[in-house]
Amino acid sequence: MGKRAEKAAGKPKALVLCSGGLDSTTVLYHAIREGYDVYAVSFNYKQRHAIELAFVRRTLEKLGLVDKWTVFDLDFTQIGASALTDASLPVPQGRSTAEMEGSIPISYVPLRNTIFLTYAAALAESKGIQDIFVGVNVLDYSGYPDCRPAYIESIEQTLNLGSRYVDDPTRKFKVHVPLINKTKAQIIEMGRALGVDYDLTWSCYNPRVAGGRVEACGTCDSCTLRAKGFAEARKR
Amino acid sequence: MGKRAEKAAGKPKALVLCSGGLDSTTVLYHAIREGYDVYAVSFNYKQRHAIELAFVRRTLEKLGLVDKWTVFDLDFTQIGASALTDASLPVPQGRSTAEMEGSIPISYVPLRNTIFLTYAAALAESKGIQDIFVGVNVLDYSGYPDCRPAYIESIEQTLNLGSRYVDDPTRKFKVHVPLINKTKAQIIEMGRALGVDYDLTWSCYNPRVAGGRVEACGTCDSCTLRAKGFAEARKR
Repeated sequence: MGKRAEKAAGKPKALVLCSGGLDSTTVLYHAIREGYDVYAVSFNYKQRHAIELAFVRRTLEKLGLVDKWTVFDLDFTQIGASALTDASLPVPQGRSTAEMEGSIPISYVPLRNTIFLTYAAALAESKGIQDIFVGVNVLDYSGYPDCRPAYIESIEQTLNLGSRYVDDPTRKFKVHVPLINKTKAQIIEMGRALGVDYDLTWSCYNPRVAGGRVEACGTCDSCTLRAKGFAEARKR
Repeated sequence: MGKRAEKAAGKPKALVLCSGGLDSTTVLYHAIREGYDVYAVSFNYKQRHAIELAFVRRTLEKLGLVDKWTVFDLDFTQIGASALTDASLPVPQGRSTAEMEGSIPISYVPLRNTIFLTYAAALAESKGIQDIFVGVNVLDYSGYPDCRPAYIESIEQTLNLGSRYVDDPTRKFKVHVPLINKTKAQIIEMGRALGVDYDLTWSCYNPRVAGGRVEACGTCDSCTLRAKGFAEARKR
């Protein structure tokens, strides 16, 4: 048994959904700090911003976790109806956070988190993992239905009832949502305390290539929320 | 508007999960008889028995529904741990139905129905469909956790909470499971009354090519249940 395997022995395993963004990267560091033997899972769903997966890799390389990373290739283009996967739908630009409130944004992908969490649970089940961490939060972007507490409770129940764990009294999925009631600024503060390198994260929904480099647009909802979060986070 | 479009106008739409087997084909005919404007969805998940999709097509051709059929390509091989997708795991052969009872079979694919129902719901949402039909049944193969009534109630709630419909008082997913308490024999009797052509269905988990034709193995759990169902169904 190598040094890392020895260190991991006895620790409970956890699976963290990693999108390369602020939130899930903070959750990844949180799960490590909580003492879990951490595995990572990501999704390549032909999103406009698939560049985010390169940022997941950079963070996992820094943490020595690349060999515990699974990337599922999914195809949501047959579902359509989202600006994140349908090239014919423009990504909204220049909206204030007030304008984002109160309605489901066009960047919503139908049932996306349910698909992600179900794949994560299937992978977790095959590895005997019970603890799943996901960086959803409800405060800054309340338009997404699948980030709300009632949804998280329901999917946790469904994953348990629909998996092998339903007949195993010793195992049960727990969906951890440590950020659910935090603002972006609070998440950034939490992540800084955990040592997160936010230069290795990506938020933009609508990246563009300019001068051979990939650049964030700076004006999509996700860029706006990121900028607001950093502006509001206490300086360290 | 063509004749079929006229006929469909005013009918509520429904989406039926079609695997090409006895159960889902019976459900397909049932949904049509119930007066729905029927759409079909299937899944190509690198299953050993992907031949089943050719049987879905044959039934849909007979019913004039091929243009309302969506097939999602999914990759479960990264999940592994099921004899249906992992070529290194043998499909059980020659088990009696008594031997199948009481434990989760190796043909179980982790969270498969949750993944299928979630993709179905995402597609349904994008088409404004609320009614989803699935041919699960609990009596003949109670080993699968994701065929039980408590699971179906839970996934229905999760799909509603995790979708756009949560904020729409006029729309709500209903997961219809008309076969849930029926035996295979009862399903076959129901299907015969609906005019199902069971020659256009496929059940075998472990098909083999012999003499240029694809043949059912006759001894896997699914073949055994199919044979038992036909033996027990009342003759017509």
